[in-house]
Amino acid sequence: MKVVVLVGGVGGARFLLGVKSALGLPIHGEAPESSPHQITAIVNTGDDVRMHDLQICPDLDTCMYTLSGAIDDVKGWGRSEETWTVQEELAAYGVEPDWFGLGDRDIATHLVRTRMLRAGYPLSSVTEALSDRWRPGVHLLPMSDDRVETHVVIDDPNSGDGARRAVHFQEWWVRYRAEPAAHAIGPVGIENAAPAPGLLEAVKEADVVLLAPSNPVVSVGTILAVPGVRDALRETKAPVIGVSPIIGGRPLRGMADACLAAIDVESTAEAVGRHYGSRSASEDGLLDGWLVHTGDDAQVPGVAVRAVPLLMTSPEATSAMVHAAFDLAGVQA
Amino acid sequence: MKVVVLVGGVGGARFLLGVKSALGLPIHGEAPESSPHQITAIVNTGDDVRMHDLQICPDLDTCMYTLSGAIDDVKGWGRSEETWTVQEELAAYGVEPDWFGLGDRDIATHLVRTRMLRAGYPLSSVTEALSDRWRPGVHLLPMSDDRVETHVVIDDPNSGDGARRAVHFQEWWVRYRAEPAAHAIGPVGIENAAPAPGLLEAVKEADVVLLAPSNPVVSVGTILAVPGVRDALRETKAPVIGVSPIIGGRPLRGMADACLAAIDVESTAEAVGRHYGSRSASEDGLLDGWLVHTGDDAQVPGVAVRAVPLLMTSPEATSAMVHAAFDLAGVQA
Repeated sequence: MKVVVLVGGVGGARFLLGVKSALGLPIHGEAPESSPHQITAIVNTGDDVRMHDLQICPDLDTCMYTLSGAIDDVKGWGRSEETWTVQEELAAYGVEPDWFGLGDRDIATHLVRTRMLRAGYPLSSVTEALSDRWRPGVHLLPMSDDRVETHVVIDDPNSGDGARRAVHFQEWWVRYRAEPAAHAIGPVGIENAAPAPGLLEAVKEADVVLLAPSNPVVSVGTILAVPGVRDALRETKAPVIGVSPIIGGRPLRGMADACLAAIDVESTAEAVGRHYGSRSASEDGLLDGWLVHTGDDAQVPGVAVRAVPLLMTSPEATSAMVHAAFDLAGVQA
Repeated sequence: MKVVVLVGGVGGARFLLGVKSALGLPIHGEAPESSPHQITAIVNTGDDVRMHDLQICPDLDTCMYTLSGAIDDVKGWGRSEETWTVQEELAAYGVEPDWFGLGDRDIATHLVRTRMLRAGYPLSSVTEALSDRWRPGVHLLPMSDDRVETHVVIDDPNSGDGARRAVHFQEWWVRYRAEPAAHAIGPVGIENAAPAPGLLEAVKEADVVLLAPSNPVVSVGTILAVPGVRDALRETKAPVIGVSPIIGGRPLRGMADACLAAIDVESTAEAVGRHYGSRSASEDGLLDGWLVHTGDDAQVPGVAVRAVPLLMTSPEATSAMVHAAFDLAGVQA
C-alpha cells in the first residue's frame, strides 16, 4: 500500500510511528525489503530557520530522529543523550540568537546539511543523504526545495505602544512561547516555491492520503499552501483522511490554538474539519474523512466523520488511530 | 614599550606568554590600564583551513586560547576541558575530513568567526570581536585579511607509483604527520594578500621586533612572504631579533625539520639564522640579533648571536629568553 502523510514536527513524527506500526513495520528503522508498503511523509519546512549560519529544519529532523529512535522522547525534539556545549560557548560569546535549543549532536546534522546546501544540493537530496545514516523507513520529502519561512505579525514585545513587527515563526513560538497574539501568519516565499521532486507524483499514486494531527496552520497549512499541492490532493484518486489535532477544544500538543486564532478558526475539531473542507462538497476542500476524538462532536458537510481515541500515548495507540483512518478511507493494510 | 612579535601556533603562543611576563604583565588576560607596554602579535594564517564549512584559524585560536588561559595545556592546542560530540557525530555521518580535531567548545569559535566572515567582516575585525571575550592582553593581528593557504606537494600516499599531489598543509601535517617528504611548500594566494590593517604601522613604530621560535617555513616564513612585510621589517628603526626554533639540531616542537628540508635548509640554529639573514649585511636579510640555545653554535655574518637556554618549559623560563632578546636588541622593558 502507498501511504502519503502530510506532517509537521513532534505530533507528525509520532503519527508516522503509528503509520509504520499499522502497516506491520518496525516502528524504528527500515522496513524489511519484502514489505509491499511505501510511506511518503511530506514534511513542513516553513519552520526552517538559519541560525549561526546553520540551516535548521526542525520538522524534518524531528521526523528523522523519531523514526530512527534517536529522538529525545521526553522533549519530543532533538537527540537523545544530547549535550549543549556549543550552545553554552555561543552564549559566552554573546552572539544572538540565544533562545533556540541547539544540541551538540544536532549541530552535526546542521553542519552536514548546510554544507551540502551551500554546495548546491537541493534540500530533498540532502534529506536523502541524511536518511542514509538514520534509515527512517519512511521516505521523508520536504514540501519544497525552495526556501519558505513562516513569519508572524505580533505586537512588538519590546515596545509598549502597540507597534507591530513581523518575526520568524520560531521567534514567536520558541522565544515568546506564542504569548503575543498573532495578527497574521504567513509563509514568506511560498508563492515561488515548487513542490519537491516526486511530491505530486506520490500524491497522485497514493492509495490513501493522511493529514497528520499536526498544526493545521503552520504545519499542514503551510504544506497545502505550496502551489500545486492542494490541487494534487483534490485530484488524487486516493481518499484523503484528516486526523484532528484538537481534542476537547484544546490542541493535542503545542499552542496550535494561538495559530488558529490568527486565522479566525475556532479551536474545535469541527472548525478545523470545516477549515480543511470537503473534497466533494466544496470548491477547495480536501477531506473525504475526518477523525475526531471520542466525545468530540463534529459536523463537516460532505465529509465522513468518525470518533475514535486520538491520544498518541504509544505507537500502538497511534496505530489504532491509523487503522481507523484506513477503515474510514475504505483501504486495508 | 612597543613589541611586535611574528608568531605561529603553539610555540609562538607560549613565546607570547614569555613576552607578557618579561614586560611585567599578567601572563593570562589583559594588561592593567596603566601599563605602558603594547604587544602586537602578527599571526600566521597560512594554516587556516575551511572544514565542514567552518573557517578554522589554528594559529590565531592557539594564541587567543593560550593568552587567556583557556588552552588545553597538555595538547598545546584547542580548549581545556574539551568534548568531541560534534566530531563523533560528523564521523557517524561519514563526512570528510575526519582527521582534524574539532572540539565542541572550539566549534563555537569557528561558528562565530565563519558567520562574521560571511557577513563581510574582515578576519582582523573578527579576531578583535573574538578577543572581546578572551582578552588576550596582546593585540592579535592576522598577517592578512586575505585568504592564503599553505599547500604542500607530496608523494601521493594513496598511489604506489610515485605520483605527486598538492595537499593543504593541514592534511600533510595532521593527517599524514608530515611523513611523506615535501617536494615543495608554498602559500597559495600570497601574491595577492595585503598585510592586515595596522600591521605595517605596528612594525614601523615598534621598539623591538621579535621572530618567535615558530616554524621558520610555514609560520614565520609565511608571514614574511606577505608582500610588504619583509620590507617593513628591513626598514623599521627597531632592532629585529630572532629566536631559534632549532635546538641541538632538532626542532623545539613539531616537525619543522620536514619543512626546512623542503626548502633545502639544514635543521641547525645556524642554518635557520642564515636563512633569515642579516639586515645589515645582506640584501634581503631580516636579523640584527639571533638567539640560539646554550651549546648551539651559530655564525651568521652581520648578526649578533647569543646563546641562552631556549626551552620554554614555563612562562618564567620563556620570560628569561625574552629578556635576553631585549638585551641583544639593546632595549629595556
